[in-house]
Amino acid sequence: MADEAPFQLLHYELLQYIYKAADGGDAEQGRNVTKLESMGFRVGQGLLERLTKDTARFKDELDVMKFICKDFWTCVFKKQIDNLRTNHQGIYVLQDNAFRLLAQLSAGKQYLELSPKYLAFTCGLVRGALCGLGVKSIVTAEVSVMPACKFQVMIQKM
Amino acid sequence: MADEAPFQLLHYELLQYIYKAADGGDAEQGRNVTKLESMGFRVGQGLLERLTKDTARFKDELDVMKFICKDFWTCVFKKQIDNLRTNHQGIYVLQDNAFRLLAQLSAGKQYLELSPKYLAFTCGLVRGALCGLGVKSIVTAEVSVMPACKFQVMIQKM
Repeated sequence: MADEAPFQLLHYELLQYIYKAADGGDAEQGRNVTKLESMGFRVGQGLLERLTKDTARFKDELDVMKFICKDFWTCVFKKQIDNLRTNHQGIYVLQDNAFRLLAQLSAGKQYLELSPKYLAFTCGLVRGALCGLGVKSIVTAEVSVMPACKFQVMIQKM
Repeated sequence: MADEAPFQLLHYELLQYIYKAADGGDAEQGRNVTKLESMGFRVGQGLLERLTKDTARFKDELDVMKFICKDFWTCVFKKQIDNLRTNHQGIYVLQDNAFRLLAQLSAGKQYLELSPKYLAFTCGLVRGALCGLGVKSIVTAEVSVMPACKFQVMIQKM
């Protein structure tokens, strides 16, 4: 079965729709990335609510991040994050070696410049979920070799 | 787990996005429904390709419809169609007693007029999947009592 496919294909349609109307200027591109990030944020918050209805509280920040890497990621992408690293000072790097939303893109270097558009929604998704858990963060992403992808989470101390 | 939630929440964001820009006139509403239907169509085609990669051929039209009601519906909505009826003359009625994409709406009658907007994508989804199986169709939907929903498929003989 292709369990992650409905989400993946719908995400792709959303991208196409948002970018079709765009004029291609840098400002417009920036606005689109922001829109996608906000949509991701809301979806992340909504998902978090449903996923944690019956979950016990988390004991610390690392525990929260593990939840994002396992339960949350699996719910959306049907796989876990492959690697989680932290500097123990509020920065976490979540690596997905086969990020589903990049799967449609070919592995070539020429597609790297397109990647922000494919990553913005998911950055928002993580930020929204963390926010729902009371953790304020900044989330960025980068692709080095397709379709592997790293999400960097910087916790904002309140 | 809330396995259908990522798709459901993303679909809701897409609706909000498309309708936010709309002026609310009837023509605009119609265009939005058409856009959603086309997006559904493409997602339906894409999903179908992935789902039938290893599937044997279908023996007849009814067999195709059963596949839509079971495998296809489960992939997208994590449940099967509750009831399938046919007049054996090319009309099929697929009833879902708890249609996921209506789940956010309250059960009151006052929301019935909103329902085309919530159903258009899925009409396209079914039409796209059937098209991928070589079956040309017209798909419409109606809600009588929320969140139950009937999709009517009219097969177009070629």
